Parts: sequence; C-alpha cells; structure tokens
Amino acid sequence: MKQAFEKKKYAPIGVFDSGVGGLTVAREIMRQLPQERIIYFGDTARVPYGSKSKETIIRYSRQIIHFLENKGVKAIVVACNTASAFALEEIRPEMKMPVIGVVKPGAKVAAATTKNGKIGVIGTEGTIGSQIYTEMIHRHNPDTVVMGKACPLFVPLVEEGWLKDSVTIEVAKRYLASFQESDIDTLILGCTHYPLLRSTIREIMGEGVNLVNPAYETAWGLKRLLEQHQIANDGKSEVNSAMYQFFVSDAAEKFKNFANSILPCEIKEARLIHIEE
Amino acid sequence: MKQAFEKKKYAPIGVFDSGVGGLTVAREIMRQLPQERIIYFGDTARVPYGSKSKETIIRYSRQIIHFLENKGVKAIVVACNTASAFALEEIRPEMKMPVIGVVKPGAKVAAATTKNGKIGVIGTEGTIGSQIYTEMIHRHNPDTVVMGKACPLFVPLVEEGWLKDSVTIEVAKRYLASFQESDIDTLILGCTHYPLLRSTIREIMGEGVNLVNPAYETAWGLKRLLEQHQIANDGKSEVNSAMYQFFVSDAAEKFKNFANSILPCEIKEARLIHIEE
Repeated sequence: MKQAFEKKKYAPIGVFDSGVGGLTVAREIMRQLPQERIIYFGDTARVPYGSKSKETIIRYSRQIIHFLENKGVKAIVVACNTASAFALEEIRPEMKMPVIGVVKPGAKVAAATTKNGKIGVIGTEGTIGSQIYTEMIHRHNPDTVVMGKACPLFVPLVEEGWLKDSVTIEVAKRYLASFQESDIDTLILGCTHYPLLRSTIREIMGEGVNLVNPAYETAWGLKRLLEQHQIANDGKSEVNSAMYQFFVSDAAEKFKNFANSILPCEIKEARLIHIEE
Repeated sequence: MKQAFEKKKYAPIGVFDSGVGGLTVAREIMRQLPQERIIYFGDTARVPYGSKSKETIIRYSRQIIHFLENKGVKAIVVACNTASAFALEEIRPEMKMPVIGVVKPGAKVAAATTKNGKIGVIGTEGTIGSQIYTEMIHRHNPDTVVMGKACPLFVPLVEEGWLKDSVTIEVAKRYLASFQESDIDTLILGCTHYPLLRSTIREIMGEGVNLVNPAYETAWGLKRLLEQHQIANDGKSEVNSAMYQFFVSDAAEKFKNFANSILPCEIKEARLIHIEE
C-alpha cells in the first residue's frame, strides 16, 4: 500500500479543455505546483464546447477522462467551465481518482470576498445557461445577488489574437454594459479564454471591481486536494519522461504555436489522437 | 432498370454542412427545385469546420455521407465550403451517387463573369488555406488573379445574430481592407454563412464589385446534374413522407429556431442523432 502511494505521487496530473483555453489553467498549475507533471488534452476537433448541449459535453468528457486514465494520471483537472458546469457532478461518481473543476473554486472565492454581495459572471452560453455559478455561490453565501452574461464572441476574438483591439473593446463594452448599472463589486471570468482579455475587461469595469480568475483558485485547490490524498509530488524521484505532455484531437501545430505564446516554457510537440475511438 | 430509375426519381437529396450555414444552400434548392425532397444534416456537435484540419474534415464527411446513404438519398450536396475544399475530391471515387460541392459552381461563375480578371475570395481559414478557389478558377480561366482572405469572426458574428451591426461593419471593413486597393471586380462569398452578411459586404465593397453567392450556382448545378442522371423529380408521385427533414448532431431546438428565421417554410422538428456511431 505504501509503495502504491509512493508510485502514485510521481504520476502526472491530467488536465483537459475543449481547446487552448485550459492552457491558462495549466499555466497556473505550472506556477503554483512546479513539481507536478502534467498531461494536457485539448479537444480541438470538437471545440467550442460553449454552444453545445449538456448530453454532448458529458459524452465528450467521458471519452477524454477515459483517455487520461489510460495515461496513468493520478488526478484530473476539468479546465473548462462548460465541462465543469455540465459534466463534473455527473461523472464524479464514476471516477476512481480525485477530480477538480474550475467552477467551484472560482465561485467560492467570489462568495468569500464580495463586500456588497453583488457578483457578476461572464462565460459561454452553456456555462451561463446552466446557472452553475449562481448555484455554487449560493452554497457558500446564500445572500448574494448573482448576475450572469454570456459572451459568445470572446472566444473567437481571443483565437483571432485581437486581445487589445478596438473591436474587442467595443464587443466587451456591449457585453459588460448590463453590469454598469448593477453596482457589482466582483466579476468572475467564467471561461478559461477570458483571462487573456483581462486588461480590456479591467479598463471597462474599472479598478473598483475585483476580477476573479478561476484558474488561480483551481491551481490552489488542486494543491490542497493532492495533499489531502497524500499524492503530492515531493520532487524526490527522477523524472523519466517529459514534465509536460500535450495531446489534441486536431490541428496540433496551431495548438503548439498558441501554447508557446502563453506558457512560461517552450513546448516541443502536441500529439494528435482520435479521441472518438 | 426502368423501375429502379423511376423509384430513384422520388428519393430525396442529401444536403450537409457543419451547422446552420448550409441552410442558405438548402434555401436555394427549395427555391430553384421546388419538387425535390431534402434530407439535411447539420453537424452542430462539431461545428465549426473552418479551423479544423483536412484529415478531420474528411473523416467527418465520410461519417455523414454514410448516414445520408442509409437514408436513401439519390444525390448529395456538400453545402459547406470547407468540406467541399478538403473532402470532396477525396471521397468522390468512393461514392455510388452524384455529388456536388459549393466551391466549383461558385468558382466557375466567377471565372466566367469577371471583366478585369481580378477575383477576391472570402472564407474560413480552412477554405482559404486550401487555395481550392484559386485552383478551380484557374481551371476555367488561367489568366485571372485570385486574392483570398480568411474571415474567422464572420461565422460567430452571424451566429450571434449581429447581421447589420456596427461591430460587424468594423470587422468586415478590416477583413475587406486588403481588397480595397486591389481593384477586384468580383468577390466570392466562400462560406455558406456569408450571404447573411451580404448587405454589410455590399456596402463596404460598393456596387462596382459583383458578389458571387455559390449557393445560387450550386442549386442551379444540382438541377443540371439530376437531369443528366435522369433522376430529377417530376412531381408526379405522391409524397408519403415529409418534403424536408432535418437532422443534427447537437442542440436541435437552437438549430430549428435558426432554420425558421431564414427558410421560406416553417420546420417542425430537427432530429438529434449521434453521427460518430
């Protein structure tokens, strides 16, 4: 039993997302848990998840978790808000290892830090429509008022690379207008692409609104989860394979280029697999 | 033999696209070939195709054609520019029935009608990167100059419903700026979503540029193809099942609402199927 634990310690963390967005979560794990190995899967053949139905997202998530389990991961991070919203509670009972999503950690910190009890959430149609953030925030703080707003153009704008662009500012102003009169003091960036638009959102919302990036809270929650299960990597074993491995379901080269533009380390390869099979 | 032909006449046309865009092609078929029945498939679980690789698009197209063949269609329309660009030549030899894509008909009419030999093409990253329009136009008119420009934000803008919007106009101005100095007299709307932005594009390009909508030419090409194969519906047989049937791989209700906003007839239902299986 002791030996199994020892071995498990050195296994990688599985992280998945619909595409490149989850790299903002992987980046936070690299920063906060530098001893942990990561196997990342981006479902670039079926991206985006945000406009798809619950049933479809659950089916896709099951396929990916199956793949990561076969790769011998010790824990799984659902680094996609839509998959966390639609699939996490459904698949958790089927899983033999610890799993953490991005919704709960973000909701928890927003509920704990708001002063006036008014919280905004932006995300994909799927995430906002699911009301998952409202539900999670109310579990921690039932007296808050939560306002959600879907921002479907943010993901394609980020993927176009128009991060600080007049068009993006205009789109963001329009999406965020509903918060202007609502006096929120906290705004959750409820999609993993959105931290890349942070400075645009900051400019529109002003310094008075606290922007919550669930990626940060998720990495912190993962750290505690690994400690609880006694499977945190102590860095004492020699690493025989790569620290970070990346798999995608399509367009590996494009993924690699995007990853290299936002990750702290250079990735050499993203391997293509057929996730449907 | 005669009987088989007679029976085939009354079979439906299979039309497929990555999602709702191909409805602009279905609409043209309804207008120009009112006696033909249609079975439409929209791959809404895996939309968009425009940013995905050739191999993936070929695999998806094969699955869909297999589904349509099982539904007993007599001919297939690939109502998606990306699938036409990436998959059509590859899968044509495997098929037992006539098939037509949207690229060739659009390229042909552009090549035939340009006066100054300068043609612009707008489309998804996949379609433009494939250079398929340039190749097809040069087959008909090797002396033309063809300029391509990928417009990845057009599809999400259409799906957001921002058809005549200041943001859409700004994005369109930026994408189309490269054509302003090039003196093109013809512009191919090389993605089935783009005819829905026609008036915005018309305003920016001016009356001097002829906008080619491949949907129109495709419906016309389909008519001739059915006549050639002697399988055009003469309207003499009683229709026992619905004239138009719609299938999708996800989010059937959303698809139905979009379809009803652009089709000339009310559709009652879009049925959900698992195309991967």
